[in-house]
Amino acid sequence: MSPDLLQQLYQLLGPKGVVTEGIEQRTTDGWGNNDCLASVILRPTTTQQVSDIMRLCSAEGQKVVTQGGCTNMTHACDTSRDELVISMERMTVIESVDNSNRTMTVQSGVPLQHIQERAESEGLFFALDLGARGSATIGGNIATNAGGNQVIRYGMAREQVLGLEVVLADGRILSSMNQMLKNNAGYDLKHLFIGSEGTLGIVTRAVLRLRSRLPVATTALVATDQFSKMPRLLNHMESALGGKLGAFETLWQSYYRIAYGGEQQTSPPLPVDYPFYILLESTGIDAQQDREQFLAALETAMEQELICDAVLAESQHQQQGLWAVRDNIPSLQPYQPIILFDISLPLSEMENYLEEMEANIREIDSSLFIATLGHLGDGNLHVAVQLGNDQPERRKAVELAVYGPLQQRGGSISGEHGIGLEKKPYLHLCRSEVEIQLMEQLKKLLDPQCLLNCGKVIE
Amino acid sequence: MSPDLLQQLYQLLGPKGVVTEGIEQRTTDGWGNNDCLASVILRPTTTQQVSDIMRLCSAEGQKVVTQGGCTNMTHACDTSRDELVISMERMTVIESVDNSNRTMTVQSGVPLQHIQERAESEGLFFALDLGARGSATIGGNIATNAGGNQVIRYGMAREQVLGLEVVLADGRILSSMNQMLKNNAGYDLKHLFIGSEGTLGIVTRAVLRLRSRLPVATTALVATDQFSKMPRLLNHMESALGGKLGAFETLWQSYYRIAYGGEQQTSPPLPVDYPFYILLESTGIDAQQDREQFLAALETAMEQELICDAVLAESQHQQQGLWAVRDNIPSLQPYQPIILFDISLPLSEMENYLEEMEANIREIDSSLFIATLGHLGDGNLHVAVQLGNDQPERRKAVELAVYGPLQQRGGSISGEHGIGLEKKPYLHLCRSEVEIQLMEQLKKLLDPQCLLNCGKVIE
Ligand SMILES: Cc1cc2nc3c(=O)[nH]c(=O)nc-3n(C[C@H](O)[C@H](O)[C@H](O)COP(=O)(O)OP(=O)(O)OC[C@H]3O[C@@H](n4cnc5c(N)ncnc54)[C@H](O)[C@@H]3O)c2cc1C
Ligand SMILES: Cc1cc2nc3c(=O)[nH]c(=O)nc-3n(C[C@H](O)[C@H](O)[C@H](O)COP(=O)(O)OP(=O)(O)OC[C@H]3O[C@@H](n4cnc5c(N)ncnc54)[C@H](O)[C@@H]3O)c2cc1C
Repeated sequence: MSPDLLQQLYQLLGPKGVVTEGIEQRTTDGWGNNDCLASVILRPTTTQQVSDIMRLCSAEGQKVVTQGGCTNMTHACDTSRDELVISMERMTVIESVDNSNRTMTVQSGVPLQHIQERAESEGLFFALDLGARGSATIGGNIATNAGGNQVIRYGMAREQVLGLEVVLADGRILSSMNQMLKNNAGYDLKHLFIGSEGTLGIVTRAVLRLRSRLPVATTALVATDQFSKMPRLLNHMESALGGKLGAFETLWQSYYRIAYGGEQQTSPPLPVDYPFYILLESTGIDAQQDREQFLAALETAMEQELICDAVLAESQHQQQGLWAVRDNIPSLQPYQPIILFDISLPLSEMENYLEEMEANIREIDSSLFIATLGHLGDGNLHVAVQLGNDQPERRKAVELAVYGPLQQRGGSISGEHGIGLEKKPYLHLCRSEVEIQLMEQLKKLLDPQCLLNCGKVIE
Repeated sequence: MSPDLLQQLYQLLGPKGVVTEGIEQRTTDGWGNNDCLASVILRPTTTQQVSDIMRLCSAEGQKVVTQGGCTNMTHACDTSRDELVISMERMTVIESVDNSNRTMTVQSGVPLQHIQERAESEGLFFALDLGARGSATIGGNIATNAGGNQVIRYGMAREQVLGLEVVLADGRILSSMNQMLKNNAGYDLKHLFIGSEGTLGIVTRAVLRLRSRLPVATTALVATDQFSKMPRLLNHMESALGGKLGAFETLWQSYYRIAYGGEQQTSPPLPVDYPFYILLESTGIDAQQDREQFLAALETAMEQELICDAVLAESQHQQQGLWAVRDNIPSLQPYQPIILFDISLPLSEMENYLEEMEANIREIDSSLFIATLGHLGDGNLHVAVQLGNDQPERRKAVELAVYGPLQQRGGSISGEHGIGLEKKPYLHLCRSEVEIQLMEQLKKLLDPQCLLNCGKVIE
């Protein structure tokens, strides 16, 4: 970076706004093991400052990487020496909550959890939740179109965003801070930026949709003996609970066996020898009625032999215990190095996909451990595959074994985590030539110098 | 159009695929009073044919207008003599329903109602509904991002679309037929085309999301005395019904008084002297439980003085009667010429907006009749304003009276119907300069010759 540019940036942002020391200690992803290579981190506090930064950078052809909470899992925030970081860590203002319109207006650096808590304190609810809630920012959630645990009922980050403010590569401020559920006045530009991982613009502010808070959660863990029963169970539970089903999280035996040992558990909530487990949760307002309805739905499922075992949580503590099994990704640690895949595919293709994929892995090395879990209701699977060794060839072979069979089944190499750097070589396996052409055309239109997260996703 | 091009089109589509007679009898909008001026209508049956048409047309610079069911309300399908029509009337195949994945794959010319019926026959539900269901096509619904009566619960057309196939202006086929709820592999291109009113591409096929069918509807009409109680009632009902609220349709006294005389009604369901009426509907699975819950919620609302009168439909016949009041737009006929506006704005701004707007209209002519109704839960109002006379100056004065006060309130000139030709002159009132620049950049990128619906929405 030219000393001249650095000088101008100091002038613009003041000493607190420009960090040049201790940068390599910062990590850039959710695994916590990537050093930040950039030599300067900028910490703007306003949209105008972000705009001014981009005017200066675009005049000099200076490349930037935007960082939110750096909890991504795809090397999406990696930097090279000659890139600048724009960190959203000081853009953390919740500007307003409109109770009547049920919206919240925020700066993009606000951590997800602060938004959830603020909504709750207003008697409302923000319908996005994921494990990294404490450090992930709403800007990062939007930039990655994050999913999480409530997608079947409420949709992904995209569905929670009504309005967006974005700074473009040339410094123009695109203010599209719509506050309504409905606005069909011309093209809905916000969708260009949601899920584009910081490659088309820098999200600076957003208007979020809030909803009614449904205070009662009813949670169960059930087991079944055949894959094909799970989609039927999903349909059954959705109908029988009248649309109240919020989570349908599936754990394969492979994952369940190692994960049940989570924190407070001593013995598994259900025996460990069923092939499939499903964590079910409904949310509503009437604890007793919801419980009765849930029990009745499970009984019918049992009668129809859709499930062969079930346990209903009797307390919040037990609910947390069931979720702890689902969330015990750290239990995979002993199998490191592993890759945690995040694929999605039509439910009707899932069973035979998994067979083919596992056969592929066995062909590489039949001793490699595979654990599968997923947001089955969304078609989204997380498959953890042990690498055995961390050689690039091994990594590549495993990636091809997993991604290859998606292609003819209309699957995707990323359900929710995005492409970043990590999955870029495989994008063509799930996107057609014309799709990729059009992505490149959009990138060129909005960022002709390739200044924003250059080299990530496409290009 | 060059005779050469016509010849090639005949060869491509055969005699059934090219219509040159009786065209002026066709209407191009939902009012049924616009002649189709084009001299040729093309009727392709496959995506490949649409692609071939666009290759020929782009080679010759021939402009086209895509027509679905022609039920739009914004002159979006108007044609000039030198434009070709591409009609979707023969692309009406429902290709498949995947019960396990809960998706339906269709050609874009399928009428909305056929999709609803097919979903129902599979025990599932397609969550988009609007009055023009019999003739409106799914392609038109997608191209206009149609709303309708269930938006607070299920979202607009956009939220019902998982995958899309689009023919671009140069004939390239963009096949983005994703079948999953979650797919974050690169930019989600379908959103560019949803709601862009045929100006960026021609929708040829789609993958639609289906949901559980909730067979029980509970319907009530209530009245209240203050505007400010309506948003509070909305919050209350959403909480008290645990997210089951599907419709929250508001009728101002001005509309209610003339509309209640609908078909089977002899006397109004509630007295006509309340300032505001709200049609409430929840959907669920247990008739008795839902009814009790609904009654309890209304009782609380009554105790809290949020409402002052209420009637709960006791039969399907009575339900239809209540909806007939809401839907009796034809009762506005005697006030013709009128403009039926379709604005949206934050709920918190609505009351003072309406005051200012009505004062503006009174200033033009204090005898002009104004009737207001709306999907209040979505911030979307339909305001019918009598013109008195159909002079262009009068029309313009009324449009400015309605659109002007939206600007400082963050409102939109179109909640659901879109811009078409009709609202184009006012787009700048609700979109910033940068937003319009970017829309123009996108149009230029995707349709550099301005062949697709040229002159609609933006230039
Ligand atoms: C424990 C754990 C659980 C997780 N669970 C889930 C889950 O259930 N579902 C799911 O979808 N994801 C999950 N993730 C990954 C997820 O993508 C992130 O947690 C989150 O959405 C990223 O937010 P962030 O602020 O950390 O973004 P970062 O990691 O900082 O950035 C991610 C990408 O967005 C860009 N970006 C960030 N902020 C902006 C901005 N303001 N403007 C433009 N671009 C920006 C970055 O350049 C980068 O490309 C999980 C991660 C962890 C560590
Ligand atoms: C009685 C009535 C009630 C209505 N209620 C509602 C309502 O509640 N909510 C609401 O949002 N709207 C409503 N509308 C208007 C609504 O926009 C349309 O009914 C519907 O969505 C348009 O579908 P269509 O097939 O008739 O489209 P058309 O009128 O044929 O076309 C509309 C626009 O889409 C484009 N288009 C059509 N098909 C394609 C395609 N395949 N590819 C690309 N572009 C295409 C056209 O070029 C045009 O710009 C109503 C209309 C009527 C008459």
